Amino acid sequence: MSEPAIVLGANQYGKAEVRVVKVTRDRARHEIDDLNVTSQLRGDFAAAHVEGDNAHIVPTDTQKNTIFAFARDGVGSPEAFLLRLADHFVSSFEWVTGGRWAADRYAWQRMEVGGAEHDHAFVRSGQEVRTAVVVADRGERHVLAGLTGLTVLRTTGSGFEAYPRDRYTTLAETRDRILATDVTARWRYARADVDYDAAYASVRSLLLEAFAEPYSPGLQSTLYGMGRRVLEEHAEIAEIRFSMPNKHHFAVDLSPFGLDNPNEVFHAADRPYGLIEAAVVREGVVSPPAAWDGIAGFC
Amino acid sequence: MSEPAIVLGANQYGKAEVRVVKVTRDRARHEIDDLNVTSQLRGDFAAAHVEGDNAHIVPTDTQKNTIFAFARDGVGSPEAFLLRLADHFVSSFEWVTGGRWAADRYAWQRMEVGGAEHDHAFVRSGQEVRTAVVVADRGERHVLAGLTGLTVLRTTGSGFEAYPRDRYTTLAETRDRILATDVTARWRYARADVDYDAAYASVRSLLLEAFAEPYSPGLQSTLYGMGRRVLEEHAEIAEIRFSMPNKHHFAVDLSPFGLDNPNEVFHAADRPYGLIEAAVVREGVVSPPAAWDGIAGFC
Amino acid sequence: MSEPAIVLGANQYGKAEVRVVKVTRDRARHEIDDLNVTSQLRGDFAAAHVEGDNAHIVPTDTQKNTIFAFARDGVGSPEAFLLRLADHFVSSFEWVTGGRWAADRYAWQRMEVGGAEHDHAFVRSGQEVRTAVVVADRGERHVLAGLTGLTVLRTTGSGFEAYPRDRYTTLAETRDRILATDVTARWRYARADVDYDAAYASVRSLLLEAFAEPYSPGLQSTLYGMGRRVLEEHAEIAEIRFSMPNKHHFAVDLSPFGLDNPNEVFHAADRPYGLIEAAVVREGVVSPPAAWDGIAGFC
Amino acid sequence: MSEPAIVLGANQYGKAEVRVVKVTRDRARHEIDDLNVTSQLRGDFAAAHVEGDNAHIVPTDTQKNTIFAFARDGVGSPEAFLLRLADHFVSSFEWVTGGRWAADRYAWQRMEVGGAEHDHAFVRSGQEVRTAVVVADRGERHVLAGLTGLTVLRTTGSGFEAYPRDRYTTLAETRDRILATDVTARWRYARADVDYDAAYASVRSLLLEAFAEPYSPGLQSTLYGMGRRVLEEHAEIAEIRFSMPNKHHFAVDLSPFGLDNPNEVFHAADRPYGLIEAAVVREGVVSPPAAWDGIAGFC
Repeated sequence: MSEPAIVLGANQYGKAEVRVVKVTRDRARHEIDDLNVTSQLRGDFAAAHVEGDNAHIVPTDTQKNTIFAFARDGVGSPEAFLLRLADHFVSSFEWVTGGRWAADRYAWQRMEVGGAEHDHAFVRSGQEVRTAVVVADRGERHVLAGLTGLTVLRTTGSGFEAYPRDRYTTLAETRDRILATDVTARWRYARADVDYDAAYASVRSLLLEAFAEPYSPGLQSTLYGMGRRVLEEHAEIAEIRFSMPNKHHFAVDLSPFGLDNPNEVFHAADRPYGLIEAAVVREGVVSPPAAWDGIAGFC
Repeated sequence: MSEPAIVLGANQYGKAEVRVVKVTRDRARHEIDDLNVTSQLRGDFAAAHVEGDNAHIVPTDTQKNTIFAFARDGVGSPEAFLLRLADHFVSSFEWVTGGRWAADRYAWQRMEVGGAEHDHAFVRSGQEVRTAVVVADRGERHVLAGLTGLTVLRTTGSGFEAYPRDRYTTLAETRDRILATDVTARWRYARADVDYDAAYASVRSLLLEAFAEPYSPGLQSTLYGMGRRVLEEHAEIAEIRFSMPNKHHFAVDLSPFGLDNPNEVFHAADRPYGLIEAAVVREGVVSPPAAWDGIAGFC
Repeated sequence: MSEPAIVLGANQYGKAEVRVVKVTRDRARHEIDDLNVTSQLRGDFAAAHVEGDNAHIVPTDTQKNTIFAFARDGVGSPEAFLLRLADHFVSSFEWVTGGRWAADRYAWQRMEVGGAEHDHAFVRSGQEVRTAVVVADRGERHVLAGLTGLTVLRTTGSGFEAYPRDRYTTLAETRDRILATDVTARWRYARADVDYDAAYASVRSLLLEAFAEPYSPGLQSTLYGMGRRVLEEHAEIAEIRFSMPNKHHFAVDLSPFGLDNPNEVFHAADRPYGLIEAAVVREGVVSPPAAWDGIAGFC
Repeated sequence: MSEPAIVLGANQYGKAEVRVVKVTRDRARHEIDDLNVTSQLRGDFAAAHVEGDNAHIVPTDTQKNTIFAFARDGVGSPEAFLLRLADHFVSSFEWVTGGRWAADRYAWQRMEVGGAEHDHAFVRSGQEVRTAVVVADRGERHVLAGLTGLTVLRTTGSGFEAYPRDRYTTLAETRDRILATDVTARWRYARADVDYDAAYASVRSLLLEAFAEPYSPGLQSTLYGMGRRVLEEHAEIAEIRFSMPNKHHFAVDLSPFGLDNPNEVFHAADRPYGLIEAAVVREGVVSPPAAWDGIAGFC
């Protein structure tokens, strides 16, 4: 019996990390959109792989040019911008059946000069990066919004107790510790008529509020509360997934120096760290695998 | 009609990036294993998320301790070490149905001192990092080996021609350019009785050889040739996936300075870069989605 | 004639990057100090280097312990904290004649929850990192304050013209471009009775204002204006030094696509970048070299 | 009495991180030079800073172009390439009195294909980066060679004992530990007729050998031995400076799990780390401050 043939499997290609900055300057008060955009196409590219025939390979350079050209008309929300790119590529090349478009968006604040907001001077603000992904795949279309690098910390109101023990357990229980994490979250919209910027701002606020309260018996509980809060308030969101490190802050033992340490002095450790990943979903709603393929840090 | 309830979806948690170094020193010639290990458990953790009940939450600290304790008996190949961890956690806690264990392995070379290899002095070698992932999920068990950061370059024997053009295309065709990439590859073993270290060394060599030759009409073609070569030589490998940037080296236009540039002086660009991702598989063999969930950069 | 002997030159050693977090929690409204502290001692350490005699080597581990122990009493401004460390080490060990103490300080904002500032939940804020260095050297004592990573951008009001040309010049003149940089600045205090926190806040504001206005004929001019403004307003500051990349934003040529680009669509380039470094000083005031040794990016 | 005027202090400017790759292809066996070059000019640039007059500002873009143009004739050693740039800029513009030119050089190895070295396929090799700096300043000219990121480790033959103790000392003495560091070293050549490539290769070897042996009573002693060895063998080197982290590998306490740990299982910690910096020099030879200004990590 012969071996099965070796063939091409799933594939996509494109241009990654196109750093496009769009200035809107048709009025005195300028606006700035600062994006890092990746475009990848899916479709019938077997000949390029197997035979070296590039007749279907829309150059990655062309994809880059298209991103810059489309920015000329304005960017808007990153989700809307990616949807325009998706529509263009899928409708322009019959062998392109879909793709994956992603953007990071960096926020800028107006400088305050002499007590007033400046018209055209900005300072990079915040720490988190807003993320967006559009996946199109043979008629399906998915929009994932998100954020990464939102670093938050509670100085109290957090503990970890009543966990199982085995021969490798040495951890002490606590009802008072620092809880700190870098939130990475992605949520999938269930429908198309969304005000993406307003939804983003609202979700960000809800995540912060649900991190702050109530008492946290563990990062899993806090994560779930954050997700639940978002789904409760946003009917247009079908599901939300998190990848959150538990950034350990260890209370330093100062007793060798004749000092107490009532949870005031901590060592902020780098590695290892806890890593908590979970989805919060609506019961019975099936999550499309295509939307989440290739996204790190989620199971 | 009532809204669907909000519930917990897929989840996993554990300790990430445990930097364990094991020295084997029962003979004069020491050996060193240098790993970065992540352990994440899957199973019934709903109560912790929804009710704050940690009775099922094997602490991430315990997972870390277990990694160090298991290293005491020796590490061996990263794949074998992760399999030991998987067996332990799945068999020790009835509510743990599986998990994901991953390791990066850093290579060290013996120093040469006075013309001879030194017994216990080492220098970090190579550029790539060897990677391993074990996914266990309700009886299934998958082993992915891989490497990342293997930076390779050809100074000639590469071109890109005969691609489709549209109104956004400005790229010029070429039959002679630099081809450079950082190879990230992951391959899945079809069976369990593998000599992981030997297979790794062989796959690495095959990837290099298939990158070097023959003429490359595009990075897709080279990628496919690399994957095909590996599958041809390794019946124990079911599939291999790649994520490879096209690291552009642009020939600099020196004509304003009265100089020619016959592909000798290049600007090595950072961003944007091409990004080529594909799987090379055996026909008819179904790839288990669980093996690849949450791995970035592959579709 | 014999060769000159080989001897030990200048040296210092210590513990780097101690990540200490201090929570002040003696009232409901907690405060947080988040520092990355480095301590290095200078003095008579020749025997350790030349003879392997550690009798003078205060362990780097002890230096770390001291940082945590001193944090127990409160941190205050990073400059004041480093001065306490300097006093301690110089006075505690007769062979320690001085040293270098440095800190990065990360800022946290209170979360807003339900319209009010939260007592103990915080989000990492801003982008820049506040820096402080104390150098003590045989009786001299220098305090450098600073910041790094303050990313600012003007969408207009900047140009570059009337520069010299040679055979390698291809740059076009412009009176309208994006001006963007990551400000790294360090300033030296001329006296000891400084309110370091207030001075820092004021300098940061002045730097932003002087970046925003007036029209910039080049980054050198803007840098000088920023420094001048700080020295004008702060008699307690003896000098200020800057290292500022010119983060190029290139207007994309959209004409191949039938589009104009009146400075609206830009490519934000990574490398290479301009790099402008200069000191703004008070005439006749000699800068102590010891204060600035080993600080990167300043001439 | 009037305040001293505010004036411009020391300054330099230029283009940083020009990523130039030069392929030598006049024979079948290609060669590759891969550099990251920074050029900064010093001289009379006061008018640009104070008055916004750019008549002396050789554009950073021109400096970049010059780097690419000069690479057309071949690169050679990074030191020689930087010296050519220095000569050019100082001789071409009368107001340019000097500057600082720096390069990182990345090493590539030929691939082995079918048992033979390939003519034009390469893999990035080694871990360390070779560094070079040329400082020219009103007639003075200094050449600093160096390397960074050379990660080395000894599994035994290292200890730390007989250090002073105070109330903050908790460290235990040891005669057997892992010693690991990332070597950053820079050395200054005393004369101009140096074979820079040969000297580099020799110094790198000597550094490794002197790290490997003899028994290390502390990183200071090992550092000094490394420097001494280099100066003994290289009369053309006037001095050498090091910045070396003590990368702590802590033996993990396995006793809670009923296991011993005879220095076999270690946790490789990230932060904090020891930081040892020192110069090894020839007695009576005065080090020119201009050569070392603005180089991080050395006192």
